[in-house]
Amino acid sequence: MFDSSTKPLVSLKVEQGVAWITMERGQAYNALSDELMDQLTHQLQRLAQQPQAKVVVIRGAGRGFCAGHDLKQLTQDQDKQRQQRTFERCATLMQTLVNLPQPVIAQVHGIATAAGCQLVASCDLAVAEDSARFATPGVNIGLFCSTPMVALTRSLAPKHAMEMLLTGEMIDAERAHQIGLINRVVEAEQLQATVAELAQSIAAKSGYCVQTGKQAFYRQLNQPLANAYEDCSQVMSCNLQHQDAIEGIDAFLAKRKPTWSS
Amino acid sequence: MFDSSTKPLVSLKVEQGVAWITMERGQAYNALSDELMDQLTHQLQRLAQQPQAKVVVIRGAGRGFCAGHDLKQLTQDQDKQRQQRTFERCATLMQTLVNLPQPVIAQVHGIATAAGCQLVASCDLAVAEDSARFATPGVNIGLFCSTPMVALTRSLAPKHAMEMLLTGEMIDAERAHQIGLINRVVEAEQLQATVAELAQSIAAKSGYCVQTGKQAFYRQLNQPLANAYEDCSQVMSCNLQHQDAIEGIDAFLAKRKPTWSS
Amino acid sequence: MFDSSTKPLVSLKVEQGVAWITMERGQAYNALSDELMDQLTHQLQRLAQQPQAKVVVIRGAGRGFCAGHDLKQLTQDQDKQRQQRTFERCATLMQTLVNLPQPVIAQVHGIATAAGCQLVASCDLAVAEDSARFATPGVNIGLFCSTPMVALTRSLAPKHAMEMLLTGEMIDAERAHQIGLINRVVEAEQLQATVAELAQSIAAKSGYCVQTGKQAFYRQLNQPLANAYEDCSQVMSCNLQHQDAIEGIDAFLAKRKPTWSS
Repeated sequence: MFDSSTKPLVSLKVEQGVAWITMERGQAYNALSDELMDQLTHQLQRLAQQPQAKVVVIRGAGRGFCAGHDLKQLTQDQDKQRQQRTFERCATLMQTLVNLPQPVIAQVHGIATAAGCQLVASCDLAVAEDSARFATPGVNIGLFCSTPMVALTRSLAPKHAMEMLLTGEMIDAERAHQIGLINRVVEAEQLQATVAELAQSIAAKSGYCVQTGKQAFYRQLNQPLANAYEDCSQVMSCNLQHQDAIEGIDAFLAKRKPTWSS
Repeated sequence: MFDSSTKPLVSLKVEQGVAWITMERGQAYNALSDELMDQLTHQLQRLAQQPQAKVVVIRGAGRGFCAGHDLKQLTQDQDKQRQQRTFERCATLMQTLVNLPQPVIAQVHGIATAAGCQLVASCDLAVAEDSARFATPGVNIGLFCSTPMVALTRSLAPKHAMEMLLTGEMIDAERAHQIGLINRVVEAEQLQATVAELAQSIAAKSGYCVQTGKQAFYRQLNQPLANAYEDCSQVMSCNLQHQDAIEGIDAFLAKRKPTWSS
Repeated sequence: MFDSSTKPLVSLKVEQGVAWITMERGQAYNALSDELMDQLTHQLQRLAQQPQAKVVVIRGAGRGFCAGHDLKQLTQDQDKQRQQRTFERCATLMQTLVNLPQPVIAQVHGIATAAGCQLVASCDLAVAEDSARFATPGVNIGLFCSTPMVALTRSLAPKHAMEMLLTGEMIDAERAHQIGLINRVVEAEQLQATVAELAQSIAAKSGYCVQTGKQAFYRQLNQPLANAYEDCSQVMSCNLQHQDAIEGIDAFLAKRKPTWSS
């Protein structure tokens, strides 16, 4: 109804270890229709199985990164069950990003609003052009950004998250950088190259090492300190037995470039 | 003994959806006597039942926002049970702020110290004049700011909280802004107007939407990610069935101003 | 094998209530050999029993603070059990810092990398010279900084921690200050004096009060809000019964200098 089922809404290119996922609903500011969310989740789940994709970048075609849910589709009827499934679909997408073995970088231009801002908060890293803007404006239309809040409050200090959620106002890239929503701000013409360089620098590392680390990151995050140390001490000693650590340390001590197995 | 029971220590004015609560112990830097804490808690609990109060502002009369506990009252005797009840009273007040359905904004001038700083940390948002100063100085008098610490560590990075608690030193409004203790810093003559504008902008939104959001904010904060998403997906689909969301989205798509039911 | 067992790797000086611990493997950038970690832990455990040591400073001899694990020792054989014990030893050291009754200040010059950066994150406070640099570079040698991550993610916003862990790149002292990894940045020639002044200012307070506060800090941190308030309300009322609080408040109200019992 909103998107023909035969037209792909997501394009993928894998180059030098970097999987570039582009949301291709530029005409609709990449609003997250059910179909777009499903295709993103599906694409991510397939990449999880592909060792040649060592880092994932998510970006949007057209004039902005992502404007959040597709309001027209969301409100096409008042079927609560169907709406509930849309939010669950969105929650699945966001958790797929967090649980993906590979790191994910959001490349943000134009706007990232509502679930689009949630997408940025859910990625491991984010780089934005200096004119990018961020908001959780649901409160302005009577629909509080409650699911975006889940990702936002796990990235930002409470007062910063609360201000975005209660006022619904746009913040600029510099402010987003100050409060920890994004990692880097660059001029628009440098955005693509900066993300490529960051992604390639991570892709040049051992895939086993990076994936082990990302998975342990989220697993230990909410554990008590003693448990987190117990968990990660085991991760370290397993990592140290892996051929990539043996090779990496040997190369480091011999001052040569390492050759990874993964 | 310290305050005549007939004189109200808190004044209230509700205007355009904003409830202005003023602590009226200006002569004592609004030190939180048992009576002042009880009146604040009582006033907040009454406001929780009043839908016309959509946002609450807390401010202080006189030369400063709040200087913390009333030391003379606290130490009038060495009755541990009574002192314990004072700290429980304070904990009740702070949790009433967090659990209040309406958002609460701290309007800070002069000083906010010890439990006064805890009051700022416990509000959802905070705006301060540029000459305002903040501290948890209990350590200087042999009484560590342990209960203020509960609010502080839930607002700030650990090293920032630790520095305030261990040194007891004042930080200025700019530093408080940098570390996420407050949202905005303005010139003294703009303080009242800035808070009024912020409060009114939130009061102009759907009360149902704002209250639903604030309550979900604190509820999901410490849940595991999957549970938080399950909770908030339900909040979203319920919110979407509410007439304010239906009206808000319809107004947005029709580019007109919404009319809220709440 | 790596360090003669008779040569101490840690020196200690206690002056005016401040225990200065210096890591004395300057020739190896204070790499954390098993022996160095054991001596640090042992020294800290002894200081825990010494009331005259009211604050602890950790610093490094030579050209940098600490370069992390001793890679040669770590990889001298491929005995996984022994390696696992090294990471557990490190986890014990870091938790000893957190659980130590006295506050610990990291005095950082040169570099603080990998487990050296973890050491900074695990201290209660940190001061660095302006040319100091910080990194978790394990990912560059195929050995993800998983145990440093435990300390890092409890100090920093997730995106800041993730960037350090995934890129392995150095950040400078100013950036470390911005993201909350350290408390203060000063010129190299001011480092020692700044740390001394900070340490002495804390040592001048009641030891009972400071230790009570530090212990409650970490205990309440991950408790639900109501439990944290229940815990800390009791801490406050016990603190208020202590002679140092009685003296401190009396001195404050009489505008005289207090005399602590501890």
